[in-house]
Amino acid sequence: MKSHTEYFTFHTKKRRELVHLTPQLEEVLDRSGIVEGFMLVSAMHITAGVFVNDNESGLHEDIWKWLEGIAPFREDYKHHRTGEDNGDAHLKSMLVHHEVIVPITKGRLDLGTWQRVFYAEFDGQRDKRLIVKIMGM
Amino acid sequence: MKSHTEYFTFHTKKRRELVHLTPQLEEVLDRSGIVEGFMLVSAMHITAGVFVNDNESGLHEDIWKWLEGIAPFREDYKHHRTGEDNGDAHLKSMLVHHEVIVPITKGRLDLGTWQRVFYAEFDGQRDKRLIVKIMGM
Amino acid sequence: MKSHTEYFTFHTKKRRELVHLTPQLEEVLDRSGIVEGFMLVSAMHITAGVFVNDNESGLHEDIWKWLEGIAPFREDYKHHRTGEDNGDAHLKSMLVHHEVIVPITKGRLDLGTWQRVFYAEFDGQRDKRLIVKIMGM
Repeated sequence: MKSHTEYFTFHTKKRRELVHLTPQLEEVLDRSGIVEGFMLVSAMHITAGVFVNDNESGLHEDIWKWLEGIAPFREDYKHHRTGEDNGDAHLKSMLVHHEVIVPITKGRLDLGTWQRVFYAEFDGQRDKRLIVKIMGM
Repeated sequence: MKSHTEYFTFHTKKRRELVHLTPQLEEVLDRSGIVEGFMLVSAMHITAGVFVNDNESGLHEDIWKWLEGIAPFREDYKHHRTGEDNGDAHLKSMLVHHEVIVPITKGRLDLGTWQRVFYAEFDGQRDKRLIVKIMGM
Repeated sequence: MKSHTEYFTFHTKKRRELVHLTPQLEEVLDRSGIVEGFMLVSAMHITAGVFVNDNESGLHEDIWKWLEGIAPFREDYKHHRTGEDNGDAHLKSMLVHHEVIVPITKGRLDLGTWQRVFYAEFDGQRDKRLIVKIMGM
């Protein structure tokens, strides 16, 4: 059994932004030498998410509009009594989820034709970390 | 350490449909010979989901009504500029998620009494693939 | 390769309640002796969830209000034809999800600074089970 762990740091220019991760994940897999296993891709923050969907700009606009409708930025979250103003980012993170597992088969990310992995930043403009951990053989 | 991977193809009659997977997953587990591990059940498409809940028809009606309320079919998604009309299916997939991990203990799916695994098709009537991958011993 | 499995039972005083799990999960990890791997934390019921977020009471108030807005308690769920009155708990479970994977690195839960793991009870006041399963080395 083999284990391989890497950490990435993102510092997005905008507060809310999507980062396409798939090419970097393929490089991590190559470095690991693992051919069969599971790759965990997990945000290490509670105001960010990781998800699998299509790399299509129109859809990404739809996703942002949808998220803002369901978990909107508002002034009056109770969480803001701590001095924060990112209550919406916590709820968006719960909705999108902070992690995915990507199957590794025959040395490749075993994704469907249109599946791509994204990091969703909901409260950026500062350093945020992501863990990529592969367990397998 | 052992690895076992199978792919399933679904071609639902209706555009939106639930498929109960648990019996098939038990068969995959039997074929794997794995007794302790994790089973990943993951849609290979971005317009489908996999989830764990109750196999009760009334609840399934509630789930569909609820999903349609939160991520409704609409004409005016930006994604439709590509010629697609399935923007809602992408959002439903994000909400439900495309994968679950089922624990394997003593050669059995280690699910609670009422837990069942479902494939949720949001844009069917065509071939769609699912991966089942077990890592364990 | 090593495997370690434990089960917890919760019996919350209130019908809807959050239980902070991180300290117990650290103890499970210590007992396992596993230093590199994945820990699955999964509710064994379809009316409960497991998620990672901040241990901050104001945010928890926001989460409950938000969940009640998106997946509200209602009398008229079809699921209630079975005699149940917990349709909302099933939908809340779908939204929050019933499981997370926590990475284990160098013998520690490899969580970010503010990440904590919670059990979310949506239909308590009775015994409910949770499985914690670690696969690794």
